[in-house]
Amino acid sequence: MGGDNAPISNIKGSIDFLDEINDKSIHIYFVGDKPKILSHRTLFTKFKKQISIIHSSDVIKSDERSAKFHKTRPDSSLVKSINLIKNDKADAVISAGNTGALLTTSLFLIGKIPGISRPALAPYVPTQKNGFLLCDAGANVNIKPKHLLEFSVMCQIYLEQILNISNPKVGLLNIGSEPLKGNDLTIEAFSLLNDNINNFYGNIEPRYIFDGYVDVVVCDGFTGNLILKTIEGLIKNTFERLSSNIKANFLSKLASPLMKPAFNNLKSSLDYEEYGGTSILGVNGIVYKAHGSSSSKGIKNTYHSVYNSHRNDVLKRIKDRMKKIDNNE
Amino acid sequence: MGGDNAPISNIKGSIDFLDEINDKSIHIYFVGDKPKILSHRTLFTKFKKQISIIHSSDVIKSDERSAKFHKTRPDSSLVKSINLIKNDKADAVISAGNTGALLTTSLFLIGKIPGISRPALAPYVPTQKNGFLLCDAGANVNIKPKHLLEFSVMCQIYLEQILNISNPKVGLLNIGSEPLKGNDLTIEAFSLLNDNINNFYGNIEPRYIFDGYVDVVVCDGFTGNLILKTIEGLIKNTFERLSSNIKANFLSKLASPLMKPAFNNLKSSLDYEEYGGTSILGVNGIVYKAHGSSSSKGIKNTYHSVYNSHRNDVLKRIKDRMKKIDNNE
Repeated sequence: MGGDNAPISNIKGSIDFLDEINDKSIHIYFVGDKPKILSHRTLFTKFKKQISIIHSSDVIKSDERSAKFHKTRPDSSLVKSINLIKNDKADAVISAGNTGALLTTSLFLIGKIPGISRPALAPYVPTQKNGFLLCDAGANVNIKPKHLLEFSVMCQIYLEQILNISNPKVGLLNIGSEPLKGNDLTIEAFSLLNDNINNFYGNIEPRYIFDGYVDVVVCDGFTGNLILKTIEGLIKNTFERLSSNIKANFLSKLASPLMKPAFNNLKSSLDYEEYGGTSILGVNGIVYKAHGSSSSKGIKNTYHSVYNSHRNDVLKRIKDRMKKIDNNE
Repeated sequence: MGGDNAPISNIKGSIDFLDEINDKSIHIYFVGDKPKILSHRTLFTKFKKQISIIHSSDVIKSDERSAKFHKTRPDSSLVKSINLIKNDKADAVISAGNTGALLTTSLFLIGKIPGISRPALAPYVPTQKNGFLLCDAGANVNIKPKHLLEFSVMCQIYLEQILNISNPKVGLLNIGSEPLKGNDLTIEAFSLLNDNINNFYGNIEPRYIFDGYVDVVVCDGFTGNLILKTIEGLIKNTFERLSSNIKANFLSKLASPLMKPAFNNLKSSLDYEEYGGTSILGVNGIVYKAHGSSSSKGIKNTYHSVYNSHRNDVLKRIKDRMKKIDNNE
């Protein structure tokens, strides 16, 4: 029931995924308002054997704030979904709803991967040259250097297993490239990452994160959230400006239909939906946050990431890698 | 001697300013390598009565780091320039050189405005709807809430006096709009700003800073520097992508000459040089940092800001306003 286009995009994305993956062993639970879901039943009759509906009468809205939804809102679709993992009824959950609620509910109901002290959000930011995971993008406002090490390990394994990037490069977001640049957190984290991460790039300034030097950008969640929202705002603003500049000029306006393919290409290369949702890395289960404005395409692509996470046992790999680091210390 | 295009852009920008302002009371000192400067003498013969050269044999390079340049590099053009303010030979300094050196040298040689404990960098970021001052953009990595109050006051006065914006609106950069969002710094600063700033907008998320809601965005210098460099990197990256997408499509490439006016308009609306340099707010003298890659236009426009700073006595206004706040406390 989460997201701006629920439940129809969520249903349609699920079906499109089943269509593409063609794996009869997959079973999907739609958790939400049963009558509403059934009103779209024509969408999923084709796969009715692979789909069940779990009715829930309550929806946590995107602007609600609490760390206790797991206690106060047991009948919400979000809490009921996470409980499916807790009770071994499901291997993974996808939600396009309230990010904070998804994070805290997962944390309380299914806990953390052993070795990980802070789960984190790691959205994939597409760029001209591939893209990068930005981690943490908002789960942890105040952190310690060891958490940046955890984020780095989780992201490296994620990229290796889900996006097939071998030996991903990790950069520490900072205001300069020298090891002693930055605030107390980054100065201390630099040597910790340098000692423990295979392919540590060093500090990276945000002016270079779009140029393909690193596959992972780690930072505290306060900074990461601000960077993510700066990117979002600036892209929107730049397109608005471009469009108003084109409309303001007679010749440009005349030529604009011919420009459409190039503009559409640019737009789609900036399209986060191509990359599916954001894994909540570090919780002891596969939980994905799809963007609140996800279309069925965003949901479908999130399913593909979830499928790969499960098949490649990302959780166990993170656990094993953290053990090794602990033993070396 | 500072900046990528020194000394020629610095000289040319000075002359273009004198041409535009037509005020015989202005005197400009070129501080730098005298033979090099004189090799461009044809540029400034027209204004030779308003120009003197002060020879300096040393240049602080843009990648040099020290907090003691004022002691170790007395013959550098940067230190000699700041000494002109200290010794009452000049009212203001413009440099396109090393920002850190300019900041620390100013701090040590001419000190701070009474009432201000932390000088800050406040570049003007142009947007579709006017623009905003981003403060602090990198001078102070670790700060307290009261410093954000100082930044807000300085920026409001600056905008009123230099850009003629009446009652500028101040936003506190944050990851959410609610008063209790963010890290310890922003949570504490919220009420301080709310109590002391006339036109306090509240928290603002970076996705909205480009939409004209606020005239000033305040934050710590670590965050501000990251945001500024994200903007810089993303704009560069977006133009590169647009251009490669246009080249890749036959029709778009064909139409690209017709698009030129619109693209050029967009580029110039993003052009920081239109707004001149960045004032180092809070030092007890008028010190401006022009962008390292400034053309003569950037230098010229920095002169205009300097001229307005001096004529409208921005320093005294900041001092008076800080006194009022201190008395209310």
